[in-house]
Amino acid sequence: MLEQLDLTKSMSDKEYKRRMDVLEPELSRLQRDLKAEHIPVIILFEGFGAAGKGYQINRLIHALDPRGFYVHSIGPETEEERMHPFLWRFWTKIPSDTQIAIFDESWYRKVLIDRLNGSSGENRLISYYNDINSFEYQLTTGGAVIIKLFLCIDQKEQKKRYKKLASSESSSWRVTDDDTLQNEEFERYKRMNDEMLEATDKAYAPWTIVEAMDRSFATVKIYTAVIESLKKALKRKAALAGGEPEVSADPVNASEYDDEVLRTSSLKKVDLSLALDKKEYKKELARLQERLTELHGEIYKKRIPVILGFEGWDAGGKGGAIKRLTEAMDPRGYRVHPTSAANDIEKVHHYLWRFWNNVPKDGHIAIFDRTWYGRVMVERIEGFCTTAEWHRAYQEINEMEKQFVEHGAIVIKFWMQIDKDEQERRFNERMNTPEKQWKITDEDWRNREKWDEYEKAVDEMLVRTSTMDAPWIIVEGNNKYYARIKVLRTVVEAMEKRLKEC
Amino acid sequence: MLEQLDLTKSMSDKEYKRRMDVLEPELSRLQRDLKAEHIPVIILFEGFGAAGKGYQINRLIHALDPRGFYVHSIGPETEEERMHPFLWRFWTKIPSDTQIAIFDESWYRKVLIDRLNGSSGENRLISYYNDINSFEYQLTTGGAVIIKLFLCIDQKEQKKRYKKLASSESSSWRVTDDDTLQNEEFERYKRMNDEMLEATDKAYAPWTIVEAMDRSFATVKIYTAVIESLKKALKRKAALAGGEPEVSADPVNASEYDDEVLRTSSLKKVDLSLALDKKEYKKELARLQERLTELHGEIYKKRIPVILGFEGWDAGGKGGAIKRLTEAMDPRGYRVHPTSAANDIEKVHHYLWRFWNNVPKDGHIAIFDRTWYGRVMVERIEGFCTTAEWHRAYQEINEMEKQFVEHGAIVIKFWMQIDKDEQERRFNERMNTPEKQWKITDEDWRNREKWDEYEKAVDEMLVRTSTMDAPWIIVEGNNKYYARIKVLRTVVEAMEKRLKEC
Repeated sequence: MLEQLDLTKSMSDKEYKRRMDVLEPELSRLQRDLKAEHIPVIILFEGFGAAGKGYQINRLIHALDPRGFYVHSIGPETEEERMHPFLWRFWTKIPSDTQIAIFDESWYRKVLIDRLNGSSGENRLISYYNDINSFEYQLTTGGAVIIKLFLCIDQKEQKKRYKKLASSESSSWRVTDDDTLQNEEFERYKRMNDEMLEATDKAYAPWTIVEAMDRSFATVKIYTAVIESLKKALKRKAALAGGEPEVSADPVNASEYDDEVLRTSSLKKVDLSLALDKKEYKKELARLQERLTELHGEIYKKRIPVILGFEGWDAGGKGGAIKRLTEAMDPRGYRVHPTSAANDIEKVHHYLWRFWNNVPKDGHIAIFDRTWYGRVMVERIEGFCTTAEWHRAYQEINEMEKQFVEHGAIVIKFWMQIDKDEQERRFNERMNTPEKQWKITDEDWRNREKWDEYEKAVDEMLVRTSTMDAPWIIVEGNNKYYARIKVLRTVVEAMEKRLKEC
Repeated sequence: MLEQLDLTKSMSDKEYKRRMDVLEPELSRLQRDLKAEHIPVIILFEGFGAAGKGYQINRLIHALDPRGFYVHSIGPETEEERMHPFLWRFWTKIPSDTQIAIFDESWYRKVLIDRLNGSSGENRLISYYNDINSFEYQLTTGGAVIIKLFLCIDQKEQKKRYKKLASSESSSWRVTDDDTLQNEEFERYKRMNDEMLEATDKAYAPWTIVEAMDRSFATVKIYTAVIESLKKALKRKAALAGGEPEVSADPVNASEYDDEVLRTSSLKKVDLSLALDKKEYKKELARLQERLTELHGEIYKKRIPVILGFEGWDAGGKGGAIKRLTEAMDPRGYRVHPTSAANDIEKVHHYLWRFWNNVPKDGHIAIFDRTWYGRVMVERIEGFCTTAEWHRAYQEINEMEKQFVEHGAIVIKFWMQIDKDEQERRFNERMNTPEKQWKITDEDWRNREKWDEYEKAVDEMLVRTSTMDAPWIIVEGNNKYYARIKVLRTVVEAMEKRLKEC
């Protein structure tokens, strides 16, 4: 989840003030509403050291009635705490149904800093994840809201902040050995955090990533995310009281991410001016295709299965990229699976069934032209599935891809990104070129009208399902040459990397 | 779950015929109803070799329209199957929404016979359990019903059946190396099965244990369990369609286990005539209490926490047993926590919060006079919680106790069993003895009227929450002397066993 971030996000003082003038009173009001509805609230702050957790907690409670919350600052286990099951110290701190409990670090310590510094056993890691997920599941099915905020800065910024803290006598005590360790081993620690996020991002207790390089931006994002979650909790309770079907810890409406500030992927930041000229393209294409041919043989011999998924805007260049891949492959060793609306047989099975049926055999390559991600894009937007269903789908999809990876597969997902103007240009070109007219339908134009909705859905999808072992690759697609080469290069490099590990 | 079984259960031909005359047409009708409602059904048969899975599947499909089901017989993975993620071969076999898929052995092979014969890696066990649970959760939240039947026989019976099979040329091929292995290592294999049952008995896909020593009994139990599950699925779908709150994969009513044949614990089989005379009692009491005093010191030095839970009928002898325990203990090292209706503070927290607050520190003993099991007894029966809530509670409680055990605690739960006559005798004695009158209230008499309902709830509780590491001990309580000595001896032996392992 930490791969697709745009850490350059910031906010002007003017915009900050404009927003906070609305957000603060809204949060105050919500605190009273939640209390009246007897909904316990847990807000936890995790993230990198010096990302500003303390500062942001201070900002957040500014809007809250102090009689209604506690802040729990979680350090290393005391001797007393070590003499109990590890969640004991958190169970005893859960809020009553009229309280908000705010955690400055939390049960996640066990799989983060305590893991890094060696005080949590590596062999019990899956157990800890299971315990944490069961804890949060028990609390949320019991009626609580859990809001999980992850504050993110980069290594350089962290070092700078530590240095500043250390330089003053009044704050130097705040930089601990654990802090120094996580800066020195930043990449390793980041991977641990990423693994944790992947293992515990659940529909009933999702993570919100907060880009925290700029404090004002972070504050606004935290307020916005907290407010959105609390509103959903109220709606859910109202719906249940009104006898509407329960959506088991899922929100009841799809309105989230309406606010731009809540988006987290770097989708809007990609440089669509990236291009190759024809000559470079031809040269690179020849080189990479030749290499791919060799690698396909190696992959087959080593019996490594490969799963490549293509998603992207209509006319984003999926077909062209797939063509350049398959040209270099032995047709006995790959299959392209085009995914369109489910047929009659697919419709009467679980939505993942048709993809499981096409899981490649060891040593084979499966290329999906559109994929299972339809669930969280077209099906979400067109209302072909319920809100609870697409919410659940992130976890279902992550679990499925994890099983592929654990079996030994290379799994890569490509998002072919173009801008709206480029799409229009390509649509018109298709309309005006007789041999391309079959590629363009009224539906494409209709989908185009929903560009903003799709953008929101794509953002959430990229963040919730980009995992270390099955990453999303955003392909800058305005220039087709550049895009095709990036796809080929990504596949070649992934294969080379895996073969080296064999 | 396999500890509390009564494998002597059987059924007369007459009773069998009487029941099957009703059950068979009912199942036929339900198959049509499920099809009309588009509910996919998965029925899987697991259990010990030669327990009669094939025979029972044959009996079951007798009532089914053959156009509406498939039987999948699952053996060791083929070469083709090994070249895919392990659930692939099952995903491709899931039924459409008008079909029933019956599995003769299933994905559970991976954690059972394949584990015993060494073809599944021990180190990936938790992963396999997670994969299986996620698979079943995805299917059930997707609308399917999963009915899991576990056929149980004992080692001796298994050996006898294998011998019979092996003696005839026409059936000897059916006794495989895996079969021989599981009979030779029956106890080890039974523990693997027990672990599997504990790890995968979920509200959304619970196990039904089938006592399979007597074929007729087993057939009736299987029919009854399948019919009950299918009826629940229909009710759930109807409730959802009518806009009633969803109870996420839980049944919508609490009517289950109404049929005696579905009960599984050995509660009704315990020998309540067991007794000790006063002289024996005094002698044993002195000996065990002396030993307990020593052990309490050892336990403290070794820092082992101990959690003892007492449940049982009113006037079942909990207080007396606890008294004999604590008499032998250092008061600085134990606490007795009486559990009654939740107070104002407890009421506004998660129902497990008050028990977590009383988790003993390492080296200390916590004795709970009534426990968290109130959720699945009094709260279930009096309607103090919803059906979904008490259904979920088995898993929540198992997860909690598992965390205690993984932290190193000894966890034992005692069920003080008396019969209805003995209870009446004790109630009357309390009424007629001035210094005991405080112990008896109108509520006790009211609870007594619900004896049958409680018996049903207790049966389900004992089966679903008796785990290898946190077992239920049924204490034959009609004779108080016998009961107290059994409790003391159980605690002493558990401590001795643990201390030996240190």
